[in-house]
Amino acid sequence: MTGSPPRVLVIHGPNLNLLGAREPQIYGTKTLAAIDAELRVLASDLGVEVECHQSNHEGALLDLIHGAVRRCAGIVINPGAFAHTSVAIHDGLRAVALPAVEVHLSNIHGREPLRQRMITAAACIGVISGLGSASYLLALRYLAATRSLAAPD
Amino acid sequence: MTGSPPRVLVIHGPNLNLLGAREPQIYGTKTLAAIDAELRVLASDLGVEVECHQSNHEGALLDLIHGAVRRCAGIVINPGAFAHTSVAIHDGLRAVALPAVEVHLSNIHGREPLRQRMITAAACIGVISGLGSASYLLALRYLAATRSLAAPD
Amino acid sequence: MTGSPPRVLVIHGPNLNLLGAREPQIYGTKTLAAIDAELRVLASDLGVEVECHQSNHEGALLDLIHGAVRRCAGIVINPGAFAHTSVAIHDGLRAVALPAVEVHLSNIHGREPLRQRMITAAACIGVISGLGSASYLLALRYLAATRSLAAPD
Amino acid sequence: MTGSPPRVLVIHGPNLNLLGAREPQIYGTKTLAAIDAELRVLASDLGVEVECHQSNHEGALLDLIHGAVRRCAGIVINPGAFAHTSVAIHDGLRAVALPAVEVHLSNIHGREPLRQRMITAAACIGVISGLGSASYLLALRYLAATRSLAAPD
Amino acid sequence: MTGSPPRVLVIHGPNLNLLGAREPQIYGTKTLAAIDAELRVLASDLGVEVECHQSNHEGALLDLIHGAVRRCAGIVINPGAFAHTSVAIHDGLRAVALPAVEVHLSNIHGREPLRQRMITAAACIGVISGLGSASYLLALRYLAATRSLAAPD
Amino acid sequence: MTGSPPRVLVIHGPNLNLLGAREPQIYGTKTLAAIDAELRVLASDLGVEVECHQSNHEGALLDLIHGAVRRCAGIVINPGAFAHTSVAIHDGLRAVALPAVEVHLSNIHGREPLRQRMITAAACIGVISGLGSASYLLALRYLAATRSLAAPD
Amino acid sequence: MTGSPPRVLVIHGPNLNLLGAREPQIYGTKTLAAIDAELRVLASDLGVEVECHQSNHEGALLDLIHGAVRRCAGIVINPGAFAHTSVAIHDGLRAVALPAVEVHLSNIHGREPLRQRMITAAACIGVISGLGSASYLLALRYLAATRSLAAPD
Amino acid sequence: MTGSPPRVLVIHGPNLNLLGAREPQIYGTKTLAAIDAELRVLASDLGVEVECHQSNHEGALLDLIHGAVRRCAGIVINPGAFAHTSVAIHDGLRAVALPAVEVHLSNIHGREPLRQRMITAAACIGVISGLGSASYLLALRYLAATRSLAAPD
Amino acid sequence: MTGSPPRVLVIHGPNLNLLGAREPQIYGTKTLAAIDAELRVLASDLGVEVECHQSNHEGALLDLIHGAVRRCAGIVINPGAFAHTSVAIHDGLRAVALPAVEVHLSNIHGREPLRQRMITAAACIGVISGLGSASYLLALRYLAATRSLAAPD
Amino acid sequence: MTGSPPRVLVIHGPNLNLLGAREPQIYGTKTLAAIDAELRVLASDLGVEVECHQSNHEGALLDLIHGAVRRCAGIVINPGAFAHTSVAIHDGLRAVALPAVEVHLSNIHGREPLRQRMITAAACIGVISGLGSASYLLALRYLAATRSLAAPD
Amino acid sequence: MTGSPPRVLVIHGPNLNLLGAREPQIYGTKTLAAIDAELRVLASDLGVEVECHQSNHEGALLDLIHGAVRRCAGIVINPGAFAHTSVAIHDGLRAVALPAVEVHLSNIHGREPLRQRMITAAACIGVISGLGSASYLLALRYLAATRSLAAPD
Amino acid sequence: MTGSPPRVLVIHGPNLNLLGAREPQIYGTKTLAAIDAELRVLASDLGVEVECHQSNHEGALLDLIHGAVRRCAGIVINPGAFAHTSVAIHDGLRAVALPAVEVHLSNIHGREPLRQRMITAAACIGVISGLGSASYLLALRYLAATRSLAAPD
Repeated sequence: MTGSPPRVLVIHGPNLNLLGAREPQIYGTKTLAAIDAELRVLASDLGVEVECHQSNHEGALLDLIHGAVRRCAGIVINPGAFAHTSVAIHDGLRAVALPAVEVHLSNIHGREPLRQRMITAAACIGVISGLGSASYLLALRYLAATRSLAAPD
Repeated sequence: MTGSPPRVLVIHGPNLNLLGAREPQIYGTKTLAAIDAELRVLASDLGVEVECHQSNHEGALLDLIHGAVRRCAGIVINPGAFAHTSVAIHDGLRAVALPAVEVHLSNIHGREPLRQRMITAAACIGVISGLGSASYLLALRYLAATRSLAAPD
Repeated sequence: MTGSPPRVLVIHGPNLNLLGAREPQIYGTKTLAAIDAELRVLASDLGVEVECHQSNHEGALLDLIHGAVRRCAGIVINPGAFAHTSVAIHDGLRAVALPAVEVHLSNIHGREPLRQRMITAAACIGVISGLGSASYLLALRYLAATRSLAAPD
Repeated sequence: MTGSPPRVLVIHGPNLNLLGAREPQIYGTKTLAAIDAELRVLASDLGVEVECHQSNHEGALLDLIHGAVRRCAGIVINPGAFAHTSVAIHDGLRAVALPAVEVHLSNIHGREPLRQRMITAAACIGVISGLGSASYLLALRYLAATRSLAAPD
Repeated sequence: MTGSPPRVLVIHGPNLNLLGAREPQIYGTKTLAAIDAELRVLASDLGVEVECHQSNHEGALLDLIHGAVRRCAGIVINPGAFAHTSVAIHDGLRAVALPAVEVHLSNIHGREPLRQRMITAAACIGVISGLGSASYLLALRYLAATRSLAAPD
Repeated sequence: MTGSPPRVLVIHGPNLNLLGAREPQIYGTKTLAAIDAELRVLASDLGVEVECHQSNHEGALLDLIHGAVRRCAGIVINPGAFAHTSVAIHDGLRAVALPAVEVHLSNIHGREPLRQRMITAAACIGVISGLGSASYLLALRYLAATRSLAAPD
Repeated sequence: MTGSPPRVLVIHGPNLNLLGAREPQIYGTKTLAAIDAELRVLASDLGVEVECHQSNHEGALLDLIHGAVRRCAGIVINPGAFAHTSVAIHDGLRAVALPAVEVHLSNIHGREPLRQRMITAAACIGVISGLGSASYLLALRYLAATRSLAAPD
Repeated sequence: MTGSPPRVLVIHGPNLNLLGAREPQIYGTKTLAAIDAELRVLASDLGVEVECHQSNHEGALLDLIHGAVRRCAGIVINPGAFAHTSVAIHDGLRAVALPAVEVHLSNIHGREPLRQRMITAAACIGVISGLGSASYLLALRYLAATRSLAAPD
Repeated sequence: MTGSPPRVLVIHGPNLNLLGAREPQIYGTKTLAAIDAELRVLASDLGVEVECHQSNHEGALLDLIHGAVRRCAGIVINPGAFAHTSVAIHDGLRAVALPAVEVHLSNIHGREPLRQRMITAAACIGVISGLGSASYLLALRYLAATRSLAAPD
Repeated sequence: MTGSPPRVLVIHGPNLNLLGAREPQIYGTKTLAAIDAELRVLASDLGVEVECHQSNHEGALLDLIHGAVRRCAGIVINPGAFAHTSVAIHDGLRAVALPAVEVHLSNIHGREPLRQRMITAAACIGVISGLGSASYLLALRYLAATRSLAAPD
Repeated sequence: MTGSPPRVLVIHGPNLNLLGAREPQIYGTKTLAAIDAELRVLASDLGVEVECHQSNHEGALLDLIHGAVRRCAGIVINPGAFAHTSVAIHDGLRAVALPAVEVHLSNIHGREPLRQRMITAAACIGVISGLGSASYLLALRYLAATRSLAAPD
Repeated sequence: MTGSPPRVLVIHGPNLNLLGAREPQIYGTKTLAAIDAELRVLASDLGVEVECHQSNHEGALLDLIHGAVRRCAGIVINPGAFAHTSVAIHDGLRAVALPAVEVHLSNIHGREPLRQRMITAAACIGVISGLGSASYLLALRYLAATRSLAAPD
């Protein structure tokens, strides 16, 4: 892989396209584009590349995860509400076996009971939640530092 | 918005395209097209416009909900089975913050235990269930009468 | 019963007598008398008659339900808190076999867990909740439109 | 109490006044009056007296139970739906400490889950369910045979 | 069947052979032989025949139930502890489709939580519990009175 | 309200009329009349007035609670068994918004599981349980000391 | 083992001896003998031998399973009701470590909640349910095709 | 439809496109294409046609199920993770009312608790799980043998 | 014990040292020192002595409870969060068998679900919650009035 | 009983006959015969006699327990899987009222959830689990040391 | 380790210091000092050394467990109430990886539901409960016999 | 606070002192001292100071948290097992109201069910789990970047 820097796939799940406008008392006022921009700046500092996608479709998120095999060195995923309901994404993450970090903008442990059930997290290396956009940035830092674990061919 | 009447988005969730043919002892023999036609007649009486969509894709329903922002004055949504499983649609409805009424053709409270868990309803103003196609019509009446609450720009 | 219009029994359960004064942020500022008046106006428009009663006594509500047999064409019932605890009212509604619509002023699906257990609703045709006094009015509309289903002798 | 035969209080709970008309596929076509008549015939055979009451009011049932102290030798109670919800009747039966047999017309063990929770039964000597009006008659037989256990003063 | 009286199968489940000696504060001091004798006396009065068996083996109880088909007019069964655990006996009773009454010496509703789960009862016509040996005698009375329902060939 | 001392409503729920006779090992041998007398003596010392009522009817208790509005400065309520089942009384207490203290003679936390579910307590300022008649007296002391919080007009 | 074809043990659990007569709307009208005959015909086609046993005794089923060690190449077992209750059969199947396929005539996933708990299945290779006697035949096909996995000595 | 053989729709759910590469210790090393090829060979032997589709999108699976009406004689569906979460697919299968067999490669009864909840299975005729690609082949055999049950027009 | 007044041990559990500063909207603005001072004044009025301790260590609270044996006539304990988790303190209170009253400043019945589980309370005579510092004072009054029950040697 | 040493009944439940061969990573490689031999050696040292039985039949285990009355001074029982399911054995042990110690070879507290439910243990004096064959030997030591507690006649 | 005998750490958890005085009907009248003396006598017989500690502090128990590494050959621990609540002690036992046997004086399986949850036991080799001080002595015997498994350096 | 850099308190909970030796397959081989050293290096880079403490005592952890008020700008806490059981630490963190980030070395969402219950997390800003020592370092980065939010006086 000489020449091209390792690539980290960043996946934003359902409703994250509304960021900035959506319930700002919970999710803050920063837009998704702003978060992606911050990620790109940090990636450049860290010598990696990020590729950012958002979808409201569980199937599309799965297709993205599958598409990362042999192309990406790791995944930062904010599954949004699917974190609590999607066995399919859990299985997909486990299937591709790339190092993945699940992130959440808000602290889900302080929210409604139905958000206490973490399904996708068990298929990730770890979880960062509650730190706003920093959840994404710190996840990227972690993967960049350990990217050699899953170097694409 | 002078000139054009306020628009109400009507969303039909999974399997509702089969209406009329599907388990008529539970869902009746009226087709979805017939319900949409009834809604259009009533809308015209009430001085509003309805825009009706059906999809079997949770993500497509979410896209529709997001698309209503700044275009529609309210939402009538029959989430079908997603009413009991979709935290994502719940979050989407809460995010757009439009007045929404959830409707069901059948009386879910008299059905299987897994249909007793209402997830999307908490993000709506209210719920009308069990009244067949009248569930839709009464929801439209309600929104038409209160549409000033969420007048698009 | 030629000559006299069909009658719909409207039953208000416990604490609804306090309406207007009681927790207005949840239940609004409209009094029960105002709701009854709105119902009477609408009934007259629809060519039906309404008979409205309130009681804090579960047994009295049951007596009212029983008394509707052969006198009324349908029931609009707001069981209040009994919606979540009264198997007896559930059984009574099932026993008289009149078309009944359960109504709630607030959206119970967005409230405390103990209000998520719906016991009486399974014995009704359907439920309308969260639409304030409109919950009652729409229920009356529904029954008026379908009153031929349970025409008294 | 020489001269007057021991008296057994028979209590019919909510909705039992509708017997004969109410869901005959579950509860049969025999009226409550017919059951009371059968009980009186059997009581006379057994040398006891029965006093039969029905109420839809939990409080009235409790008042009846309290009123049996020092007047009755035992209680046959069909708490109807209150069997599954009333801690108050449970406590009342335990408080008066008269021998009581709970009866049910239908076999509650073959019905809905919410009828599987038996609250009042724990305060009785035993339960007879599912045998139609014979549930009452056999309970009376039992109490008549053991009435000396709780002879009023 | 002219000439020979209808036969009722009486089945005693596990540990009932110890009756009289076993925890008399719960089960009384009467032996199983004494109960069988009482049943035979009553049967003779009622013009029926009883056939009594005890086994500690769930499979043997099932074999007895199966053996009753076309030989017996009804079953009185005290499944003992199997009442709370045996889906097999439930299925066997349902399969033979004879009128069966489940009986218990003690009032199970006042005992440990694991005895509150009634599995076999749903396959019976009804249950009599808590009345000591009278539970058996009253069940026999009931079946004798209704034996025509399931007259053997 | 010059001249007349503030009034505290004391409400005794179901079965408390039997106090003294009822299960004295749990509830003691003091009668309800004796408790009311102790309350009156203390009230006089504290410069308040008490008005004591008992009923076995949930609806009657609710009517009493409603009747306290604008007449009483606070409520001492022993809901008895209704503490564990009545959402209606919970709602009623919340609706009238008077300072209320729930009391229990016995320590419910050491009793059966079904008494561990506290429904009405959430609508009170606090709870005193297990201290026998002192539960009432201490509640009265508390309300007398803080009665200015809810001075009637 | 040259010369003699591999043998598959077929075990029928409780109540299956009643097949054909027992609740035909659930289990069909084919008798157990007919199923065994079909199995023998198919076995002969597949070059294997079947040995069929039925018992209502959990212990006898266990003895059969144990007896298959070193004699049989695989097991087709319909544990009937024991599928949902028998940890002992689960342990026995795991202990003998023969390839076993659990079969059910009816689709247990569409039946009562207590049949949703699958205990023995976890000790099998797989499960075939709902296909009537074909459940057995397909299981035999599977084992015949893979019998080399567990060839007896 | 004379001339053309009956068609069976084969539906592969989420993540099955990764078969062969995905967690081979659970799912084996056979690819999805290999399974489809095996199915086509068997179909040809059985005189039926198979049409195979895979999607990671719940909505797309639903569309496929709907599209089978009047075109296919039966469905073999491996819903993957949706088997445990999708009420929508359950409803869709019930709505089209074609004979369907649910299949799983692995034995779900021996896996994590969240895979023990079977939602879609209740809408199928039966389930075959744990037999690897043979789960599909045996399901096809079953449907081919019973295809006359649901012959397209 | 002539001469020295009976002593009541007052135990403050974890985080109560922060009182006044800690979440004043829940716990008020009064400091722990102020509560102890109020207790000492009241104790002096009542002719008893109080000894007040606070610790954040469950073990230290247990040591204090053990140390009360033969030195103190009763215990007022605010176990704070340990009320909901500490079986050890429950056992310690039961072991020393001194009359103890559990107190809470806030009304735990109106707070989060995890505070609804009362573990230590079952080992006390009773509980006073929700009355702020008055919870302590009333508990002291109760113990002072009944202190003869557990007079130290 | 002079002359003959006290006898301890040793009961081995289902699947224990396979010991040595069965899942040796859990149960070890020692056979049941070897354990019985160790028990006989130790018994002889302790001056008691052991009588060892194994059965896969719950009913046979019950018969053995019943047969111990008046013949044995105590029971060592390894109920195997029945420890988690058999209310009947629980009741049988309680009925015979002999000192019994339940033993398990493996540490059930570290195994599957369904093995965490201990039913029979509540009817024993105590439990020894996880110590391999030493579980049996230590139980025998305990009973030998305390055998005077239940000396046969 | 020539010269010095292997050492077994004996840890007594909360409230065990009160032994002899504490609820003697459950825990007996033997003091902790007496148990330690019995352990020392037996240790000397077995050629091992015991070191006995008691603390009411979960943290102190953890420190003791940690301190055993490289000093002790095994641990006998009676965690008292912490057996049911302490994940920390579970983790500590697992971390030091010494052979540990958990002991209880009383038979916890016959006590309150909250004592049925065994947390620390899963980190031990096994458990001995219900045998009074013999629980300790038998655990010591077991460890002495198998001490070579974890010989300190 | 000119001159001295802001201080971040780092708290290590129970068993973390064993790091490096303890179950390295879960927790890695890095010692706690090594982690503290890494934290100090990073702190120096970030212009903050760290103060690191470990304790196995819940009370000591609480004392540390309390001691941070007015001295520290934030807290990084690895509560170890207390994360799942300590309501007291939850309350303590909420009481001091400093920005706190909970960290875990392992991914708790992929571990045992009892580790899925997160109690302390709700009182933190967020959680980082599963990233080994990087969990700590990233938390420090987050707090350093946002330290102005809670600047000590």
